[in-house]
Amino acid sequence: MSASIEKNVTVPRRVAIVGTGVIGCGWAVRALAAGAEVVAYDTDIETARRRLADTIDIAWPSMEKRGLAARADRQNWRVTDDLDDAVAHADLVQENVPEQLELKQEVLSNIDGATPPDTLIGSSTSGIKPTDLAAGCGHAPERIFVAHPFNPVYLLPLVELVGGDATTPETLDAAQAVYRGLGMRPLVVRREIEGHIADRLMEALWREALHLVNDGVATTEEIDAAVVYGAGLRWSLMGTFLTFHLAGGEQGMRHMLEQFGPALKLPWTKLEAPELTNTLIERVVAGCEHQAAGRSIAELEHRRDAFLTDLLALVEQYWPESERLPGRI
Amino acid sequence: MSASIEKNVTVPRRVAIVGTGVIGCGWAVRALAAGAEVVAYDTDIETARRRLADTIDIAWPSMEKRGLAARADRQNWRVTDDLDDAVAHADLVQENVPEQLELKQEVLSNIDGATPPDTLIGSSTSGIKPTDLAAGCGHAPERIFVAHPFNPVYLLPLVELVGGDATTPETLDAAQAVYRGLGMRPLVVRREIEGHIADRLMEALWREALHLVNDGVATTEEIDAAVVYGAGLRWSLMGTFLTFHLAGGEQGMRHMLEQFGPALKLPWTKLEAPELTNTLIERVVAGCEHQAAGRSIAELEHRRDAFLTDLLALVEQYWPESERLPGRI
Repeated sequence: MSASIEKNVTVPRRVAIVGTGVIGCGWAVRALAAGAEVVAYDTDIETARRRLADTIDIAWPSMEKRGLAARADRQNWRVTDDLDDAVAHADLVQENVPEQLELKQEVLSNIDGATPPDTLIGSSTSGIKPTDLAAGCGHAPERIFVAHPFNPVYLLPLVELVGGDATTPETLDAAQAVYRGLGMRPLVVRREIEGHIADRLMEALWREALHLVNDGVATTEEIDAAVVYGAGLRWSLMGTFLTFHLAGGEQGMRHMLEQFGPALKLPWTKLEAPELTNTLIERVVAGCEHQAAGRSIAELEHRRDAFLTDLLALVEQYWPESERLPGRI
Repeated sequence: MSASIEKNVTVPRRVAIVGTGVIGCGWAVRALAAGAEVVAYDTDIETARRRLADTIDIAWPSMEKRGLAARADRQNWRVTDDLDDAVAHADLVQENVPEQLELKQEVLSNIDGATPPDTLIGSSTSGIKPTDLAAGCGHAPERIFVAHPFNPVYLLPLVELVGGDATTPETLDAAQAVYRGLGMRPLVVRREIEGHIADRLMEALWREALHLVNDGVATTEEIDAAVVYGAGLRWSLMGTFLTFHLAGGEQGMRHMLEQFGPALKLPWTKLEAPELTNTLIERVVAGCEHQAAGRSIAELEHRRDAFLTDLLALVEQYWPESERLPGRI
């Protein structure tokens, strides 16, 4: 699939949100802004109603600035403590209960039993595999999958879609269209692993950061500064591979692996690296060259620099010192 | 030190660049834009001259947009293959030879011997400890330190300053002022470890990413997409700690550690996490609360959302599909 091919987009009419924490409320705002009706389920109706109203208050100005769908209505939602009522007529059910396997299995089994077999059921789980989640679903497990978003859900476009053993390809096709209808960029993960893709990366960075704090090497503030003023600026345009492709000079990733490959043996982190075999080198180099799409390093650098120049002007309006927050550097 | 205190800024008159690869050329542009004279040393004068001219051509429009110093002159540089000539009258010598300990030791020893004891000597090493680098310097090792930048050096503001056993506090004070004079944000690292701070974080992410490619879980393009469209957007405003502080809901980091602390035991990455002791919890929570500076989660969310809304509008001008680069998602 390439970006030049038209992609299916389906805006769901009704989205059921099961569980109204930070993530559930974020989904609700995204669905409302896309023009859907939202029915939210939680056991504590009053708390759920307050949280949802608060999140909509905080987020709506951003959604207006991003551009609302013609049918978008910030009041087109209600809360219920009756799960069947919440999910029965939804096009998409998004599950966001706490990250406990047994609890999620029970809730998903109840949703499965209460919905017709063509209702899409996505779980926001950050780490659990979809096959494990669907283990108790006997009705129509083929339409159950992981749809893992990123906070704040109403602004960050990434959603990781992961199918389990029972999930059909048709489900993942339909799911991609629906999440695109919610303004997102679905990334279908090739096979299920704990933490999917993005959380494995974030968790590696997070664990290394905790080691640095634990070992007294740096404070949380210093570590955050090391991200914000350095690599963090690049990561909103390019990921780690294309970034390193540009760090390799005219030869790109191949030279970068020659030059810094040996560093994979060094104790620069507490994470052991894989062996840099020829197979792995070829896979990484071919991937970067595909991403570069025939553009020279110089062309990519030009695009990166133009972006960073605009971005620096933007972040300077928001960086701590512009709001007189304390900052060591 | 807090942001409200005036900080010393010293613009160097002459900067010597030793080694003219991607990093050395990046330093040269940054120094020229700040109004300094640049003398670059390399053994192959013709190649060095071409690389420097090319880098200035690529980077100068960005530097003009960022704002040049009054004295900035893009032609105020020359290349020499005489190291003594390059460094003798510099205020700052920046060493950027390949990442090999013995080579760097030899070059730094030669620089040390060829400069008066008050010349600052910074090494761009991404991983080597400053004490090891200065092992062969018998003249004035107290003014030798690591000054580790990020590519592209002329735009990314972070520079990690790391002193070795011989480095004096006065050197690090003077170095901070000089790198501020080059428009940078110096982060003084509390103690020397391999990879300093930022590269430990990037290396953990990089190694995990290589594992994902090696295990056939994802392509380089999918991994880059998982960063670009998700966490990468947040990382230019907040690092990993403040990001998670906001993921914890109204209770911030303390709640986040309660909720996701157990996940540190899960196999979400190949990196083992430290034990989440009470000491570590308190250190992380106190760090985040200091960074929040008395602002509520809601206030921080408001600032994040306003930033992300502006950023999304910006990156949509640069993201692959806006240039018809191929992209799976």
